[in-house]
Amino acid sequence: MKLNIKNGKIDMSHGSGGRASALLIEELFLKYLNNDWLAQRNDSATFNIDAGRMVMSTDAHVISPLFFPGGDIGSLAVYGSVNDVAMSGAKPLYLSVSFILEEGFALCDLECIVISMAQAAKDCAVNIVCGDTKVVERGKGDGVFISTTGVGVLPQDVNICGSKAQVGDIIILSGSIGDHGVAILSKRENLQFETTIESDSAALNHLVADMVNAVPQIHCLRDPTRGGLATTLNEIATQSAVGMHIHETAIPVKAEVAAACELLGLDPLYMANEGKLIAICARADAETLLCVMRDHPLAKHSSIIGEIVADKHRLVQMHTAFGGQRIVDYLNADPLPRIC
Amino acid sequence: MKLNIKNGKIDMSHGSGGRASALLIEELFLKYLNNDWLAQRNDSATFNIDAGRMVMSTDAHVISPLFFPGGDIGSLAVYGSVNDVAMSGAKPLYLSVSFILEEGFALCDLECIVISMAQAAKDCAVNIVCGDTKVVERGKGDGVFISTTGVGVLPQDVNICGSKAQVGDIIILSGSIGDHGVAILSKRENLQFETTIESDSAALNHLVADMVNAVPQIHCLRDPTRGGLATTLNEIATQSAVGMHIHETAIPVKAEVAAACELLGLDPLYMANEGKLIAICARADAETLLCVMRDHPLAKHSSIIGEIVADKHRLVQMHTAFGGQRIVDYLNADPLPRIC
Repeated sequence: MKLNIKNGKIDMSHGSGGRASALLIEELFLKYLNNDWLAQRNDSATFNIDAGRMVMSTDAHVISPLFFPGGDIGSLAVYGSVNDVAMSGAKPLYLSVSFILEEGFALCDLECIVISMAQAAKDCAVNIVCGDTKVVERGKGDGVFISTTGVGVLPQDVNICGSKAQVGDIIILSGSIGDHGVAILSKRENLQFETTIESDSAALNHLVADMVNAVPQIHCLRDPTRGGLATTLNEIATQSAVGMHIHETAIPVKAEVAAACELLGLDPLYMANEGKLIAICARADAETLLCVMRDHPLAKHSSIIGEIVADKHRLVQMHTAFGGQRIVDYLNADPLPRIC
Repeated sequence: MKLNIKNGKIDMSHGSGGRASALLIEELFLKYLNNDWLAQRNDSATFNIDAGRMVMSTDAHVISPLFFPGGDIGSLAVYGSVNDVAMSGAKPLYLSVSFILEEGFALCDLECIVISMAQAAKDCAVNIVCGDTKVVERGKGDGVFISTTGVGVLPQDVNICGSKAQVGDIIILSGSIGDHGVAILSKRENLQFETTIESDSAALNHLVADMVNAVPQIHCLRDPTRGGLATTLNEIATQSAVGMHIHETAIPVKAEVAAACELLGLDPLYMANEGKLIAICARADAETLLCVMRDHPLAKHSSIIGEIVADKHRLVQMHTAFGGQRIVDYLNADPLPRIC
């Protein structure tokens, strides 16, 4: 028996745990994701670890559409958990992946996604060591959902977390915002712009490694995904019990992203990003950190966008391009569901 | 703003990453699952670890119905990954959880599930340290899907895996088979039996700890979930390149489960279990292991069901109750989808 990847579709038996499941694992998952752990075909993976601090993070991915300019759900799911582990300053090492497939999903699409995951894992230098696949009836899912969990190790003396922003600290953003959100939206709504806007979906762990190496005492790191830059800054302000002043003119937004947002009545501050990060560090470290970031291809447009201030209301305030000031709140309604 | 748990429903904004997401986390997930890791509200969890071997395992849970006699998707999702980690002989420690919720799902049902997860985690002595929640539109999911990933530590000198069964080894089963499968089926099809058949869904990590403590040199452990006892034995036979002889009369099946299976034309050998395990060990260790198992409440009906034999065809053969012999193959079709 062979899988018919070209014309075949997922059926309920692929989730049975029996022969069809084994075939799917053998001829699709193992074919592309193979490594010593998966090859063992146990229900778990074992790896050696040095004493120290470990970091764990998980993300479910339900993005629609599954394929979009600049990426797909497979690479996104790998980068998603890798980036979340990296935002603690840790080095991501191992990933688990669970698939929820809808009956009728084309095997050739699944193959594309698995190939993309394999490439993404390679980019991140992580191993996908264990997995699980379930199948739900037609109309009870939406093609494929992918949950990934990453684990990694944290270097000594690195203590990065959302509650460590201090008054006087500097806020650095690694590049332009809104690319992912606009890329998804334009694909979903079939909008045509002069240039195709691509998602910024990328692995940030190598960038973080460079940053932590240069400035181990970074206070906060976070990737502004769902809810965008605005929501992420608010989260950190709340966690750290501080206020923030940011400067609109310092926040890079690509001209085509800005134009698309204006057309659609959306604010790039709330649009999801999948390959950007915010770093908060002491003023004395900012210049060093900025230089290191600008040396990395994924952060060459890094800029200082603001500073931490004392504020018992924990507000994020923005100095606008027109010289005014406005409060930038958490995202309230959801402008763009299923963005990741 | 407060969550209306009694009458409220999940809407798309609960997956936005914005204020509604924060409210859901605060008033539902944190309320019941709270611990030092979740309280930090970072995208990842950090924990200290000794040098050694770590084990990681993941499972997606798509069971239907969500609530069934003997359990629900919440406890099942916790036990699922805990048990998979335990089957390597490891001590499960930390769990991540990702929810995929369908728009319109009742918050009171979600609350029941989260309460059940909290209790299950307590039973297993594991901490749920990180999580993620996504929401999909009505008709693109089915209430709730839950993926969990567990990590744990493996004691020195324990090397349990599916490829280590050796000719002459003894196969022990920890109790009756088919309970989970029949419980789900009867609930799903609204079948009434004289007694309610309950799922055996349970945490096996404490049992495994006792077993490994008494006989660290156990060769294989596996929980016969999807595909049932028959498929699990076949998997191990394939991995270890051996054959198996099992004895039908030695395999415990509850009378009501046997009756239900007969009525429905199902074979208990292929029915899923969620609180049983198969142990394979050297003949010299079998009696000790059996005694330890029978001392544990979850395995008091343990029995020796067969032995490993040399067989280049890697067949599992059963001596039937009628004195015959038949080949017990892998599960082929799926008699019972979405069983876990």
